[in-house]
Order: sequence, then structure tokens, then C-alpha cells
Amino acid sequence: MTILFSVKLSQKDQQRLKENYPDQVLNFYKNMKEAKQYIQEAEILVTYGADLTSELIEQADHLKWIMVLSAGIDKLPLKAIQKKDILITNARGIHKKPMAEYAISMLLQVYRQEKLLMQMETNKEWTRRSIRIQEISGKTMVIAGTGSIGQEVARLSKAFFMKTYGVSKSGRPTDFFDKTFTTDEMDRILPEADFLVSVLPSTDETKGLLTFDHFKLMPEHAVFLNMGRGDLVTSEDILKAVQDEEIAHVILDVFEEEPLPADHPIWAEENITVTPHISGVSNHYLSRALEIFEKNLSAYLDNSKEFLNTVDISKGY
Amino acid sequence: MTILFSVKLSQKDQQRLKENYPDQVLNFYKNMKEAKQYIQEAEILVTYGADLTSELIEQADHLKWIMVLSAGIDKLPLKAIQKKDILITNARGIHKKPMAEYAISMLLQVYRQEKLLMQMETNKEWTRRSIRIQEISGKTMVIAGTGSIGQEVARLSKAFFMKTYGVSKSGRPTDFFDKTFTTDEMDRILPEADFLVSVLPSTDETKGLLTFDHFKLMPEHAVFLNMGRGDLVTSEDILKAVQDEEIAHVILDVFEEEPLPADHPIWAEENITVTPHISGVSNHYLSRALEIFEKNLSAYLDNSKEFLNTVDISKGY
Repeated sequence: MTILFSVKLSQKDQQRLKENYPDQVLNFYKNMKEAKQYIQEAEILVTYGADLTSELIEQADHLKWIMVLSAGIDKLPLKAIQKKDILITNARGIHKKPMAEYAISMLLQVYRQEKLLMQMETNKEWTRRSIRIQEISGKTMVIAGTGSIGQEVARLSKAFFMKTYGVSKSGRPTDFFDKTFTTDEMDRILPEADFLVSVLPSTDETKGLLTFDHFKLMPEHAVFLNMGRGDLVTSEDILKAVQDEEIAHVILDVFEEEPLPADHPIWAEENITVTPHISGVSNHYLSRALEIFEKNLSAYLDNSKEFLNTVDISKGY
Repeated sequence: MTILFSVKLSQKDQQRLKENYPDQVLNFYKNMKEAKQYIQEAEILVTYGADLTSELIEQADHLKWIMVLSAGIDKLPLKAIQKKDILITNARGIHKKPMAEYAISMLLQVYRQEKLLMQMETNKEWTRRSIRIQEISGKTMVIAGTGSIGQEVARLSKAFFMKTYGVSKSGRPTDFFDKTFTTDEMDRILPEADFLVSVLPSTDETKGLLTFDHFKLMPEHAVFLNMGRGDLVTSEDILKAVQDEEIAHVILDVFEEEPLPADHPIWAEENITVTPHISGVSNHYLSRALEIFEKNLSAYLDNSKEFLNTVDISKGY
């Protein structure tokens, strides 16, 4: 059985996998450009996901399982995959720690005026007068998306004594959330939101879910952070909300178009903080993703069908 | 009875105090320069502390109680105060939330390369290649000082799944610390320290407590953060530790000399982050400090002697 990797692995990881699965053919390539000539033989493909096309899926005559070493599947050629009834598993769950750290860190950065403090340091300037530092403790945190990432943000928010409200399709009660609401009920709680954090994936239901009117409902001092997907809300609505001072600050790690074009007005807006889709980056990322892959590979070889993180294409996650 | 304030209070706070204590003479001045001419009559003085001198204490013929609206008492003329047997209470305890947020925030800033990310944003530069983001979760946190601030840092560290070691004079077991050690035992745990955070006050025992040899014991990737007092360790030892790469990064909010002189080499060192003694700053600061003052004033008027936060001059805190 041939397992094809279009993912750059360390020599150490390659060695371990070879030792753990001596009976399998493991083909390691650092990207799809090199890997694609072998796609026809592959029964299993390990990929970050964005390198796949419908053409490649069509060529993949023996492909039974794709292990995606990321969480979002919106970049995959889903129709072609579905047509061939190929199993997809992903690495969801491993993003929760770095993403929760990202959210807390960025909210602290804004509330503690760290940009200003860094400028002062660059200028060797010592003053305490112009700095207005606020605490994130005790605030009200609304989190759109109550899966593993949303729960981890909520768990840390509780450690900072925050009130936590969750928003999800079902509105089902969830750990670490004081209350949960359906997306239809979101309007009711936005007036209380000091922070709104979105971890929503890109699905038919989430695209364009958030609009300027939602920002109008929020307090003027509110901060919105998006680390889910950029198509949740248009750049125009975000810019208008900040420029009209409907909310105080926006932190964006995801965008309608990525990379964010160099001439995009979002870059220049003082009250929008931009990071280049790095909320899920972690020095532990690959080892955690490969751990899931190996557990699933054992399930595949045992024919136990007890896979972790299978993706339901019809739901989109 | 005359209560003298050398602290700028809002009209709202002044009004409330006048209403709550209609029988007392409340003299509000925004600083000691204006207040000092009335020190002779004052029975109670409310101050941030640094504005007091032995001369003023000698002039204060009726002074029985000084409410210091900060935590450190190292700037007070302690001998003169002790000679007159004046009660000191301070605002310790109210610093724990902002200081714990400071510590977590600054460690995240360093581990998540936020300086680099901000530079990239300024340059409208989108790249993920040069960014090496680490998690603070799961690290080992050594906290020197296991009082209310140290405990609050430890509590949040536990929320980030850290191992927490406390260092104190007694080494007594304390909430939120996995283990506690005496200062003499510190050498034993420094080799394990990913983070060393000091919240120690300035006392005869803490002055110069930390030296270059301690940094040598720590891992090369370790980060040292000082938000206690600047005389814990010399600037020379800090600079040498960073330049010799004994540790990776230092975050300083306190210094041997404050303000840090503009020509001090610490400003220019890339692996030292400088903030201007702002770790305890919070938008809730004054209201929390006045809450303690009012509770103590009630105790004073009732003669109950149940004061919060009395200072033991012989201990230095």
C-alpha cells in the first residue's frame, strides 16, 4: 500500500514513520509539485489541503483516504472527492491551544496598548502619562463557534473572570460557556459584548453571516477578532464599522482575500490589527497533526474504522 | 479630624467621600506640593507614597495613619515614620489582576513574536515564513514571590497548563503552586525554568538576590521577567546574561534607576523588552485603592483596629 506525503517532514519524522510502518510504501515529497506524479498509485494522501485540485483527484485511481493536516476544508475540491467517496480526516482540535493563546494575547495587546509601548521603547521614551491600560479581566466575551477552539477560548476567558456567551447553529449548552445562543439569537447579546471572537469555519451558512448592522448593535468600546474564516464578513463592513466608530478595534487573522493585497485599505487603518493567518501556528503543530495521522493509520490498517476527525462534506467541517 | 489627600481624585470620588464622611474635614489636593502646607493638621494622610520625606513626617504633629495607595513602601521615610509610631496601610492586593495580565501578556508577546508581526504590519508585509511562534502552554513557570501577585500569576499559569514553582523566604506551600522552595533552594529549580517571573518587593533580603550565576543555571531559551523591584539584580548582570546568551530574553518593568536613563544600554538591547513601570496600571486602580481606604477609615473611626493591609516596617512590606 502506498502512502504519499505532499508535506515537508523532518528526517526524524520520516524515520519514525518508516520504522512504525515497515510494510507500507511511504513516499515523502516536500510539496505537491513533486508529489503529484505519484498520485495515481497512492491509496493514502497526507497533505495540508490547499494543494489539491479536482484534476489530481481524478487522476488518483487508488485513493481511499486523504489526511488533511489542517482544519479548514474549504480549499479542497469537495465535489470530486465526494464523487469518488474518498474518506477525509483532518487535524481539527490541534489548533485550539495556539488559537486560544492568539485570541487572549491579541486582546491583551489592544487593551494594554502594547503597540504604543513598543513605539515608546523604540524611541527610548519613558512616560506613563499617555498610556491608558485596561484589564481584560471581568469583561463579556461572545464567541461565535462553540467547537473545540471556541471552548478553549472560553476556558481561558473564564480564567480571566470573563462572562462567556457562545453562539452556534444549535445554541446547545457547551462547557465553559455561561450561556449559549443560536445564530438567530445573536442580536440579543451583541449589545453586551466587550469582545466578539469568531472561530467559525467557512460554510454556506457562515458566509456573510456578520454584517455592519451587527457591529452597530455592539458597544462603542467593543473589540472584534476574527480568526475563523475571512468570508464571515466583508472588508467594507469591517472598515465602515471602525471608521464610523461603531466599535473601537478589530483584530484580523483571516481575510476575504489572502494574502491581504498590499494596497488594501485595511492595512492602513490604525484601529485594525492585521496578522497573516498565523493564529493556528505553533511549534507543536506538525507533531500533533502526525499523532492524529498515525492513530488513523492504525485504524485504517486494522480496518477498525475508528477514525479520529472524519470530515462530513455535506456539513463542511 | 483632618484627612489630607496628596492624590488627584475625580470630582465624583471627592463628592462620594464627603457624603460618606460628613463629620470629617477632607482636604483634597492633587499633589504633595499643594498639600504639604496642611500636613501639620492632618491626622490621616492619603498618598501614593513617593512624595513623602522625613522632613514632612517631622512636621506632621498630628499624623496617626498614612494610607499609601500603592504597594511598595521602599520610597517611604520609614525611620521617621517608625519613630513617630504612625500606622501605615497600603493598597497591596489590588495590583494582582493587572500585574498577572502584564506577565501573561508580555510572555505571550515574546513567544508569539509580536514585535516582528507589528513591524510586518507597518510594512504591509504578508509572510508566514520568518515567524516562529511558540506556545506558553505547558511551560515551567518559576515565580519569585508567592504573595497575592505571585499567586495570581501562578493561577493564570495553571490555566495555561504550566508547571508552577514558587520561591519565597519560607518556602511554605501556597495555592496555585505545584511546589514551593526557599530562596536558598532556588538554584535547584532554575535549570527547569522556561520562565522566571519576579514580583519580589525591595527589602534588605531581596536587594541583589539575583545574580549572573542564576541566569547561568537557567536554560538558554529561558525568559526572565521582573515586575517586582529593580534592585533585585544589577543591570550589568542582566545585560551580560542576554549578551552571553545564557538566557534568551528579558522583560523589565522595573529598574535600578527609574526612569531608565535615555542613554542606558538596556534600551538598545534587542532581547530586552522595556516597559515604563506600568505592570500595575489599571483603569480600575484608584477605585480599588479607595475601597481599601474607605474600609480602613471605617475601622479607624470605629476604633476597631481591624485594618486591611497594615505594613510591618521591620519586614519591609
